[in-house]
Amino acid sequence: MAEPRDTVVLAYSGGLDTSCILVWLKEQGYTVIAFLANIGQTEDFDAAQKKALALGAKKVYIQDVCREFVEDFIWPAVHANALYEDRYMLGSALARPCIARHLVLIAQEEGARYIAHGATGKGNDQVRFELGCYALCPSIKVIAPWRMPEFYQRFPGRRELMEYAQKHGIPVPVTPKAPWSMDENLMHISYEAGILENPKNRAPLDLYTKTCNPTTSPDVPDELEIEFEKGVPVKVTNTRNGVTHRSALELFVYLNDIASKHGVGRVDIVENRFVGMKSRGIYETPAGTILYHAHLDIEAFTMDREVRKIKQGLSLKFSELVYNGFWYSPECEFLKHCIARSQQAVAGTVHVSVFKGQVYILGRESPHSLYNEELVSL
Amino acid sequence: MAEPRDTVVLAYSGGLDTSCILVWLKEQGYTVIAFLANIGQTEDFDAAQKKALALGAKKVYIQDVCREFVEDFIWPAVHANALYEDRYMLGSALARPCIARHLVLIAQEEGARYIAHGATGKGNDQVRFELGCYALCPSIKVIAPWRMPEFYQRFPGRRELMEYAQKHGIPVPVTPKAPWSMDENLMHISYEAGILENPKNRAPLDLYTKTCNPTTSPDVPDELEIEFEKGVPVKVTNTRNGVTHRSALELFVYLNDIASKHGVGRVDIVENRFVGMKSRGIYETPAGTILYHAHLDIEAFTMDREVRKIKQGLSLKFSELVYNGFWYSPECEFLKHCIARSQQAVAGTVHVSVFKGQVYILGRESPHSLYNEELVSL
Amino acid sequence: MAEPRDTVVLAYSGGLDTSCILVWLKEQGYTVIAFLANIGQTEDFDAAQKKALALGAKKVYIQDVCREFVEDFIWPAVHANALYEDRYMLGSALARPCIARHLVLIAQEEGARYIAHGATGKGNDQVRFELGCYALCPSIKVIAPWRMPEFYQRFPGRRELMEYAQKHGIPVPVTPKAPWSMDENLMHISYEAGILENPKNRAPLDLYTKTCNPTTSPDVPDELEIEFEKGVPVKVTNTRNGVTHRSALELFVYLNDIASKHGVGRVDIVENRFVGMKSRGIYETPAGTILYHAHLDIEAFTMDREVRKIKQGLSLKFSELVYNGFWYSPECEFLKHCIARSQQAVAGTVHVSVFKGQVYILGRESPHSLYNEELVSL
Amino acid sequence: MAEPRDTVVLAYSGGLDTSCILVWLKEQGYTVIAFLANIGQTEDFDAAQKKALALGAKKVYIQDVCREFVEDFIWPAVHANALYEDRYMLGSALARPCIARHLVLIAQEEGARYIAHGATGKGNDQVRFELGCYALCPSIKVIAPWRMPEFYQRFPGRRELMEYAQKHGIPVPVTPKAPWSMDENLMHISYEAGILENPKNRAPLDLYTKTCNPTTSPDVPDELEIEFEKGVPVKVTNTRNGVTHRSALELFVYLNDIASKHGVGRVDIVENRFVGMKSRGIYETPAGTILYHAHLDIEAFTMDREVRKIKQGLSLKFSELVYNGFWYSPECEFLKHCIARSQQAVAGTVHVSVFKGQVYILGRESPHSLYNEELVSL
Repeated sequence: MAEPRDTVVLAYSGGLDTSCILVWLKEQGYTVIAFLANIGQTEDFDAAQKKALALGAKKVYIQDVCREFVEDFIWPAVHANALYEDRYMLGSALARPCIARHLVLIAQEEGARYIAHGATGKGNDQVRFELGCYALCPSIKVIAPWRMPEFYQRFPGRRELMEYAQKHGIPVPVTPKAPWSMDENLMHISYEAGILENPKNRAPLDLYTKTCNPTTSPDVPDELEIEFEKGVPVKVTNTRNGVTHRSALELFVYLNDIASKHGVGRVDIVENRFVGMKSRGIYETPAGTILYHAHLDIEAFTMDREVRKIKQGLSLKFSELVYNGFWYSPECEFLKHCIARSQQAVAGTVHVSVFKGQVYILGRESPHSLYNEELVSL
Repeated sequence: MAEPRDTVVLAYSGGLDTSCILVWLKEQGYTVIAFLANIGQTEDFDAAQKKALALGAKKVYIQDVCREFVEDFIWPAVHANALYEDRYMLGSALARPCIARHLVLIAQEEGARYIAHGATGKGNDQVRFELGCYALCPSIKVIAPWRMPEFYQRFPGRRELMEYAQKHGIPVPVTPKAPWSMDENLMHISYEAGILENPKNRAPLDLYTKTCNPTTSPDVPDELEIEFEKGVPVKVTNTRNGVTHRSALELFVYLNDIASKHGVGRVDIVENRFVGMKSRGIYETPAGTILYHAHLDIEAFTMDREVRKIKQGLSLKFSELVYNGFWYSPECEFLKHCIARSQQAVAGTVHVSVFKGQVYILGRESPHSLYNEELVSL
Repeated sequence: MAEPRDTVVLAYSGGLDTSCILVWLKEQGYTVIAFLANIGQTEDFDAAQKKALALGAKKVYIQDVCREFVEDFIWPAVHANALYEDRYMLGSALARPCIARHLVLIAQEEGARYIAHGATGKGNDQVRFELGCYALCPSIKVIAPWRMPEFYQRFPGRRELMEYAQKHGIPVPVTPKAPWSMDENLMHISYEAGILENPKNRAPLDLYTKTCNPTTSPDVPDELEIEFEKGVPVKVTNTRNGVTHRSALELFVYLNDIASKHGVGRVDIVENRFVGMKSRGIYETPAGTILYHAHLDIEAFTMDREVRKIKQGLSLKFSELVYNGFWYSPECEFLKHCIARSQQAVAGTVHVSVFKGQVYILGRESPHSLYNEELVSL
Repeated sequence: MAEPRDTVVLAYSGGLDTSCILVWLKEQGYTVIAFLANIGQTEDFDAAQKKALALGAKKVYIQDVCREFVEDFIWPAVHANALYEDRYMLGSALARPCIARHLVLIAQEEGARYIAHGATGKGNDQVRFELGCYALCPSIKVIAPWRMPEFYQRFPGRRELMEYAQKHGIPVPVTPKAPWSMDENLMHISYEAGILENPKNRAPLDLYTKTCNPTTSPDVPDELEIEFEKGVPVKVTNTRNGVTHRSALELFVYLNDIASKHGVGRVDIVENRFVGMKSRGIYETPAGTILYHAHLDIEAFTMDREVRKIKQGLSLKFSELVYNGFWYSPECEFLKHCIARSQQAVAGTVHVSVFKGQVYILGRESPHSLYNEELVSL
């Protein structure tokens, strides 16, 4: 039981679980402040705000963090060509430290000693939230109800949660829950658990929500020119219609649109979670997939071979650290700095075609290219 | 000028260059034995044999090395998920040591002290041939006409080669030469040089010869079950029609067919050559691309996370060594051994869909999986 | 409270702590079997046996594991030139999995479901014992009293342990405890904690027990010829007096004698423990230090440069894993295999001088040397 | 034959070889400018200057580069704990790029198109000089007489050099040449070749010139406090007599004195040269050895564990690059930057004892220590 006036900042999603957690925390005596990051997910933020207030939150913070998510978290991953275990583009792993930063800021503003989240005890996100929060504010205390016996024994299944919701006036979803869990943000959506847990089961066709099915996607490619400076995109032009975007957020959203339209960015993998178990995940990372290919190309074109090899080793380590939640660790800061240093002359324009689930590199040019056409010629 | 009876084994391709080299070597006083490996390239081997004999080769060896190419060279690359600089699947680099092995064997059988090849002085293949031959037989001497002033000054351009050919009765190609150079084998075909040297120029649509254009490839995917044992495929079944292949060579050829039909395996990259310069290359690697994705998946499913990380580092080094021609070096032998060791329990079946230039993993199962469905379940 | 007939195998040292734990475990209802490994430490094993029986142990196992400690644990470290953080030779870390193996064997023989140890909750040894036991027998349960509130709250200090000892007839040491803690085995002795915890405090001169003080050690060196096969020593000859030893254990003991006599193997370091904190440790590793230098030399003499570089990377990882208690992990098994493979041709004789705390390499010869005197000559 | 007015800057040592080269270059028609770096070697610089002028050098530059050698070359090696193949402290390898920088500066000042050196065709120094010069000034042309048939065929042995010297009035050394070759600078002296080429032959006792024999060195240690800031020493105090030095050069010279007096820094190794062969070298690196141990200690005390691991990998690569002459390469610049970044908080004081060939760490303290005495205490 908390002291009467102890305040907790809850990472609130608007869904059933964190709504129940909100009410449960109040039952334990906490004053609850809900924080819901708008990090690009599909959500009715107004409704979520009203709901949290109705459930007894003292305050609800809803903040649009999309721009900083792109600039401060996705861009370093683009620098690194970050892939976890050769395939996963780290969409969730990059979002967590961005959210954790705001949880801590709000806790500091509000004088809250506690932060709570709804991540489970077998997943990666608990680790990412907690390492992030503790790194930014070592004195904070994290409450993880799904790891507390008094919580998980009370709610052994979804049925008990539903009953609790009904009893406490928590709105219950009217549509049946999808037989898997999802996590969405501007960069990606993940699907796991439920019927996907059997790694042999193929994903149902209606699972995907962030990209079109390549079998029904357009029969004509889109072609883009993506311009990079210091290793990040600064301009995207669609050569079919001249549409151009320049700011980080706007061009990222546009790349999401184009990739989504052409079914780009789907993967179905088994990965090794931080806590040790293997887990099957299905991901859609539309813009991230285009940028991965384009950055790889402009980097190869402009970076010294031996620097690239060293940087590749650093990136492998970076990806592993990000996956495991160590974004704010000294080693990750060190790697970010070193990798950014390697990108100083990574500049130029990559021409890509996006079509039927694929990204094709068509050509590239650069003011800093180390490519010497005369030398290579016979 | 060679001693009258000095014998040279020439890596003969049947084309204009090595035909001219054959005649030129005879002019220098060598007895020439031509060796043409059937390593899966499109070639009229009978015609090539007759041509070489007609040009004065003392003997012509034509050997089908496809099976050993798959089993001894491509399979270790599959083990390693080998990619050079994150993208190039090493099709040429794997073929060279296979050919070098036979060049040396024939030289030893025939008592030849020399081996000659037609690779240029700016490329990787000269290095791969020569490191391979010297490693297998340190006493051999390699003749590389394109690095010898008496040869390259005599043939500064294609025109001089053509004139020489006409003068010496060397059949001259009737179709105009493509404005780029190609190298084909069972695993891949590469295109480089000529109009491709400008890295901004996109590849002409009619360039590709080993895969269909994804824009016109079938609108219905093929689905395959690929079964692995000890990290290599041992059975491929097309679930649409039940077609099954089991031997290494046959299943590899079948995967080439399926991938080719669906336009899988095209990449356009700039890479760093061993000799230091950056080079633009376009590659088609159909079966290799399917196997890369399938092996990555079954490996992730069955291999301990930490072993995987160590193996990943070894594979990066392996890929670099293979690219640079060090196949027969002590360090590459060491890496092959270690990587093979990591594959002992990599077994199971991967379900893949092949469609419009993409390989989609649909699911996987394994007798040795480290995946624990009960553990992962909430 | 344990079930009446639950049996626990206790890693017993003969000292105050594990004697109290023995009695305490009995209080909790366990049947206690004491295991005391003779792994080369200075100990009155007969007395320890009697003491454990007197305290109520149902059985006492005392096993001499010195030979297997050298052959199965120290030799792989010699292969690897294993150093943790460039300086620590891993003496304790290598002993723990050797002891864990026997704890598990005895538990299996005796049908015991529990293993207990006296390692603290801040150190590395708890991790090494437990990871070892769980890897070898996942069903075993480890009891670590120093991490259990009912134990550590009862014994907040040495005074409470002493009172408990007196009350339960546990013999209390008559000499005052050294103001630091020690752990000894055939390979090394460590000193830490107490007055050593201030990393600025220099070690008292009377601290060292396993090597002579270099300021008073002999003024005449000993010179040894150390012969290696497959990367491990197979013969040691003292060229001053012709004394020769051939078996693993005997030659290791002899090297300990010589190194000890000349004050070889002392280091004072700050290291990073597995659990995260930095810790100051002082170590004496006499024979290990000679072998480190000798093996490094014969390896450099006989191993291909590029293989050496790869192996060096593997060894760094191996050392870290051993330090952290992962001896029986799949990744450590993999590394041991790969490193052993690299040692196949590491053979020859190294001539060393041992004097005043230093090991000097004087020369080396090998049947497999890659050294070519003619080539190197001008 | 050079154009009449072509100017060459010769890396002049004052010895027989480069004196003969000076005269020989003039014979070839070059105008010769001699450059002799005072990089801490024992040399009569005035005599050398007069000699070079007497032999016909148009100008002689003698420059004291000791301070920049310490600050710009040795300090980055201290940062890295740089060791080549675990043992060689890179004394020669660090000096070469320092000298190359001045060769190029003088060539640019004097409008010389050529640089010449006296390094042989089997060693590392030719590579280091040439990679350094070409990196700093790609248009320069390096003349390496010992790789030119017209030179080495004329001087197949020392006898021919002596004859040439006598004929051209080149002073011939009056003392017989040592039966090995030496290279000295402020950081180290190396001995190789001659009777040392047989790796079994032990070094003669009278070989060493930069350190005392530990068997006859003082029976009383010196104790030093070495203070570091940002990973480099900024103050050295001898606690026996209070002597203190603060500037980079002065403290380095003082550490050389102390280490020399106590016989610290001798190693006898077989190493792998860049050009591929194994080579036996004996080195004395007095101050470098003290600083290696002291820096390792303060770094371990103040650096995050995981940053240290990453930095350790970078340092391995750095050491290899420096050994191989790639000081001015993009990858080495990148590594220097990253490693320097890791040193920002490496500060504090290490207490060491220097005695009989050994450096003992006695304790350490730091304002930035990550060591937490309360945490580590039981």
